[in-house]
Amino acid sequence: MNNKTVISHGSESSGTNVCGRPLVECLQTIERFHGWKAPGLVLGLFMVDWARELIGEGVEADAIVETRHCLPDAIQLFTPCTVGNGWLKILDWDKFALSLYDRRERSGYRVWLDLEKAQPFENLYNWYMRLVSKKDLPLDVLNATILEAGRTVLSAEEICMTRFYRRIKKDAIAVCARCGEAYAAAQGPICKACQGEGYFQVVTQ
Amino acid sequence: MNNKTVISHGSESSGTNVCGRPLVECLQTIERFHGWKAPGLVLGLFMVDWARELIGEGVEADAIVETRHCLPDAIQLFTPCTVGNGWLKILDWDKFALSLYDRRERSGYRVWLDLEKAQPFENLYNWYMRLVSKKDLPLDVLNATILEAGRTVLSAEEICMTRFYRRIKKDAIAVCARCGEAYAAAQGPICKACQGEGYFQVVTQ
Repeated sequence: MNNKTVISHGSESSGTNVCGRPLVECLQTIERFHGWKAPGLVLGLFMVDWARELIGEGVEADAIVETRHCLPDAIQLFTPCTVGNGWLKILDWDKFALSLYDRRERSGYRVWLDLEKAQPFENLYNWYMRLVSKKDLPLDVLNATILEAGRTVLSAEEICMTRFYRRIKKDAIAVCARCGEAYAAAQGPICKACQGEGYFQVVTQ
Repeated sequence: MNNKTVISHGSESSGTNVCGRPLVECLQTIERFHGWKAPGLVLGLFMVDWARELIGEGVEADAIVETRHCLPDAIQLFTPCTVGNGWLKILDWDKFALSLYDRRERSGYRVWLDLEKAQPFENLYNWYMRLVSKKDLPLDVLNATILEAGRTVLSAEEICMTRFYRRIKKDAIAVCARCGEAYAAAQGPICKACQGEGYFQVVTQ
């Protein structure tokens, strides 16, 4: 089905240290930031761990995630890239994959959940493919499977970036003639909200 | 210029505790997560602080930011809302504003940088309007102005949500017939990347 050049698991995470920290500490970090130990984020932890290892410590890598579920938080917690600092880009494709890349060299590594490798881990596969209800698969049981699987359900490939490798620069801003707030000048003479695309009505007392 | 019903600063943050924590601790959190004490994030801290106070502690609030610069990180660090858990939505409007809202009641509060109020704080105003270069306005000087200004350069209003108040549910997924990866079924018979919208080429050794 696919002809990708897939990288071997290499040194495979030992299970005690992930992303340079003890696993238990990583899981606490996840829960504190994300609100709960979301299985997608636990799996994402192993994905980031492998991508970091592949690209190496010397590279100031930017990141792309191919879903807005969970993976953005894995990147934000375990790399220096955040949405707000502009180093992380999010593609809303619902593909469970992420890439770390050197934006100057335009090269990097992509890591993804490999469904063929995941199939033997029934809980993980059924959860990801939405074949089982939350009621029938308790979080602790699912997360135990994910921790057991670790990197073995993932694949990785070396990539050369063809798009999205530039950091997005701030555009010119202007003051909206209607609301008096600053906005991206490219939106036209008044801001998006004043053009009718706003999301709220003001409550007047 | 505008007829908004603006809320008074109320109890105004004392400068020692912001978002329920000592200011110095908040600034450390910002630097650790975002990589540096970005002025937009320091200002965002005061915005979140005020929005949190207005909506009250009892409300499990979702968030919207109206720019992808800095403010997403202010929300992610100082509320339970993150990009990856789906409680934070980002509008790419380059407006320095954020809202916290109760998604069931569809009501909440919006806080924004008020340019009229900001004008007396020359460093802050000139930075935000991009009237001064980084070279001519060192970060420490700018951040000192922002800390001095705090909430006084902001305005707030009570809002009723008309859009975006629902959490986005996960869509059905399918397995792409070309790459074999899972993707959002709504994209068609093959995934976006296989449709030609991908961002990389695989490097074959």
